[in-house]
Amino acid sequence: MTTSEIIQKIRSGDIRTAARLIRNIDDGDELAYGILKELHTFSGSSHIIGITGNPGAGKSTLINNLIKAFRNQNKKVGIVAIDPSSPFSGGAILGDRIRMQEHSNDPGVFMRSVATRGNLGGLSASTSSIVRVMEAMGNDVIIIETVGVGQDEVDIIKLAHTTIVVTVPGLGDDIQAIKAGILEIADIFVVNKADKDGVEKTIRDLRLMLELKGNKEGIRIPPIVTTKGISGEGTENLIKEIENHRTYLISSGKDNFLNARRDYIELLDILKINIGRRIDNIIETGTGGKEEILKRLERRETNPYVLAEDIIKKVFG
Amino acid sequence: MTTSEIIQKIRSGDIRTAARLIRNIDDGDELAYGILKELHTFSGSSHIIGITGNPGAGKSTLINNLIKAFRNQNKKVGIVAIDPSSPFSGGAILGDRIRMQEHSNDPGVFMRSVATRGNLGGLSASTSSIVRVMEAMGNDVIIIETVGVGQDEVDIIKLAHTTIVVTVPGLGDDIQAIKAGILEIADIFVVNKADKDGVEKTIRDLRLMLELKGNKEGIRIPPIVTTKGISGEGTENLIKEIENHRTYLISSGKDNFLNARRDYIELLDILKINIGRRIDNIIETGTGGKEEILKRLERRETNPYVLAEDIIKKVFG
Repeated sequence: MTTSEIIQKIRSGDIRTAARLIRNIDDGDELAYGILKELHTFSGSSHIIGITGNPGAGKSTLINNLIKAFRNQNKKVGIVAIDPSSPFSGGAILGDRIRMQEHSNDPGVFMRSVATRGNLGGLSASTSSIVRVMEAMGNDVIIIETVGVGQDEVDIIKLAHTTIVVTVPGLGDDIQAIKAGILEIADIFVVNKADKDGVEKTIRDLRLMLELKGNKEGIRIPPIVTTKGISGEGTENLIKEIENHRTYLISSGKDNFLNARRDYIELLDILKINIGRRIDNIIETGTGGKEEILKRLERRETNPYVLAEDIIKKVFG
Repeated sequence: MTTSEIIQKIRSGDIRTAARLIRNIDDGDELAYGILKELHTFSGSSHIIGITGNPGAGKSTLINNLIKAFRNQNKKVGIVAIDPSSPFSGGAILGDRIRMQEHSNDPGVFMRSVATRGNLGGLSASTSSIVRVMEAMGNDVIIIETVGVGQDEVDIIKLAHTTIVVTVPGLGDDIQAIKAGILEIADIFVVNKADKDGVEKTIRDLRLMLELKGNKEGIRIPPIVTTKGISGEGTENLIKEIENHRTYLISSGKDNFLNARRDYIELLDILKINIGRRIDNIIETGTGGKEEILKRLERRETNPYVLAEDIIKKVFG
């Protein structure tokens, strides 16, 4: 297929072509990168929703319910699930994936998961690029799910137009744990598992914190929506609040800023991947590879500072 | 102070000079970097212990008990606490810090916390550099604490000679959640809060998984130590297992490899910081700064791909 054929396929929503493109971006394919660059023109009309919250807050069930509701509105949905590659959360996340499988035969639902990697030279397709491909596919809604731990995940959430923070009653001092950072990124709060004890207290505490902050800074106070996991109660309300927030973004002109911020994140992602690859190359070809470096370090023939100066000289000339 | 005076101060264990050096490394000070380079020669004799485990596993109390025990042996202790900058864990971590304050007047205990940042150009002093300074100060033991979420944290744990994974009974399917990744990094398992229900089952499940893996690969099977949080019961046993592991590392020659791996991580850290700074500079001086870029993106005058090519050309010529 020629580049323009691939672009045509992606724009018509072809899932196989999109999946292959994402894999190729992942592999660092130059051609794939060129296609991504072209796809930028065809992006900007999807509504990107970020969903974050503690492990165990019921995010996956909530997302499942949202997918159903959006599909009932005949909207196409893309989902990017961020896997923080944690040895601790591995099990839980696998379970979540399986729960979402019920949409796997629906051509109007396209799901990809991505591992966050803190590594230099981690060549995994960045979330921003996957979102870009999903936009070009014509998805009306793109959901980004993160477990909200670590700076990487907080940065990823900045790709969203509307950020939903999910919490549950009875997480101990959960409200205390929702610190300033989360108040700043939340556009909508969901108190999930609203049939559990302590839901009123959770809502009251949350409202107090939000109003204190809203009053101080004169900004929009995020609404609080209650939902009940499996039964799906409250999903329609949540959809309504998402639409309200979208209207607010467009009427205030904020959506243009959010799209620009997203572009900026993508810029940093591209730079990170490009430079990481250059360094990997230098390490592989210019210094005998990682194994050779490790051997020299083990024999204490060199040290990280001397090596770094050498590599920087080779990369930057 | 001249460079050699600073190095002398650090080597004599002067806490103020060490704290200032770490701050200066944090600020990207070239001189500080030069000192760090010299300090490499005076490192390699500390025992570095990594401690990781789910939030709520009681790591801080355990570390507190370890510090006491090491101090009773008249050993100097450095602690690096990794704060994953999570908006969710903020509260808990603050509490942990306060709990460790009881050692704050002891000149034989030096503690620093560091925020992990996934950002390009994040100039925060890398953990590897802080550990290097603590080694040069003559700390016998250096403890690195992480909450074990995210790839960044798993990478940080690779700085340690001995990695301790802390778990507690009754975390639901906690053993299921301890996946292959954690089995690979653990040198010692601690089942903490051993007065809680289900401790025998936790130990049994853990032992089974460890033996399956140990038999398969013919490797050392990590011991399991039980501890009781506040009372400190089990701490002496844990200390003994740490010493056993250190003996094993030295007699098998593995410690040389681990030191080389640590050097390699430091090499990548140095490269990351150096290149991040170059890109920050280009963005600030070569393209009008982040605000200007955001404005141009908002007006859709440019896109991330064009900007990336421009910046890469400026950085690499």
